[in-house]
Amino acid sequence: MPSTPPRGDDRRAAIADAAIHLVATRGLRGLTHRAVDTEAGLPPGSTSYYLRTRDALLTACVSRMLERDLAAQPPGGQLPLVQSAQVEALLTQMMLGLVRDRAEDQLARYELSLEASRRPELLDAITQGGRVLREHLAGILGGLGIREPEQAAWPCAAMLDGLLWDRVAGAGRTLADDAWELSVRRAVAALLTGFSAD
Amino acid sequence: MPSTPPRGDDRRAAIADAAIHLVATRGLRGLTHRAVDTEAGLPPGSTSYYLRTRDALLTACVSRMLERDLAAQPPGGQLPLVQSAQVEALLTQMMLGLVRDRAEDQLARYELSLEASRRPELLDAITQGGRVLREHLAGILGGLGIREPEQAAWPCAAMLDGLLWDRVAGAGRTLADDAWELSVRRAVAALLTGFSAD
Repeated sequence: MPSTPPRGDDRRAAIADAAIHLVATRGLRGLTHRAVDTEAGLPPGSTSYYLRTRDALLTACVSRMLERDLAAQPPGGQLPLVQSAQVEALLTQMMLGLVRDRAEDQLARYELSLEASRRPELLDAITQGGRVLREHLAGILGGLGIREPEQAAWPCAAMLDGLLWDRVAGAGRTLADDAWELSVRRAVAALLTGFSAD
Repeated sequence: MPSTPPRGDDRRAAIADAAIHLVATRGLRGLTHRAVDTEAGLPPGSTSYYLRTRDALLTACVSRMLERDLAAQPPGGQLPLVQSAQVEALLTQMMLGLVRDRAEDQLARYELSLEASRRPELLDAITQGGRVLREHLAGILGGLGIREPEQAAWPCAAMLDGLLWDRVAGAGRTLADDAWELSVRRAVAALLTGFSAD
């Protein structure tokens, strides 16, 4: 470990950011320790020094994305969101924001999620972000009076993620911006109406 | 090209099946022409003979999965499915069946969808299956009286796919079978109710 932790932490963050970018743009085949050095503008061997194994490198990507997820959590837990229209607006904005500002994080997450089937040690880390989101969502759904909100949050989160996937990695890549936004608004509204009615 | 087309067609199918299995289980990093030869039990060089380039190999996987998608299409277009309960049962069974019988196809499709961002020639092929499903779904949603069914089919298909993803590649991998089934039933019902009400 270096003797100046802040510098070390900054380098770790820079390495993780570069690795996430590589995974998102080139896939896991494009992720090597050397490619991360180059992408981060660091001397050869830097990535290996901080994160010796491929597992360590992949796990660092996941941790970094989770950090960003937590930093971006809307403060819904503190607000009394009891109106469907408020929740609808919050979730729609969240979806549009994730695609607009963090499309690479989504792509990297999908790549790493698939890889987690082959690396059990990655599975827990990669699903942790999803669990945090589900707990948060359960609180919001409960506030709307939806029954068994913890149970409902699961498919609800999976379906919202399906909308994200469609836009960054699915057939929705070919939709115009306004068609996609309309589609998200309608979907979020239908989802909340449907779960509220059951 | 070989002089006996049926044998050639059988080999092509066997090669595509082996390639899909490799992509699903080892990811795109595990897909090489040589690995496909081994997996399919064919003499070295067979895969290169039929599908010289990596693009040709990836496209063959996509075509083969589309063939299976089309063969598995429920005959909803011919049936007068005007009751929500019938559609709910049909979609739920389709989801459960896709995960039970064709989880590897889903995994391979997700891998290839991500790869399509880096290979434009793959993008059209990989999204074709999604478009076929959306047209089919639009017919079903229209039968239920849902407004603008072609527009609604888009997010609806994306959200159903999100449920599949969750189970084969997401946090839902950790759910017990009965919890997942319950989750799908509730989600499909909520989806149809929500779109019917808007």
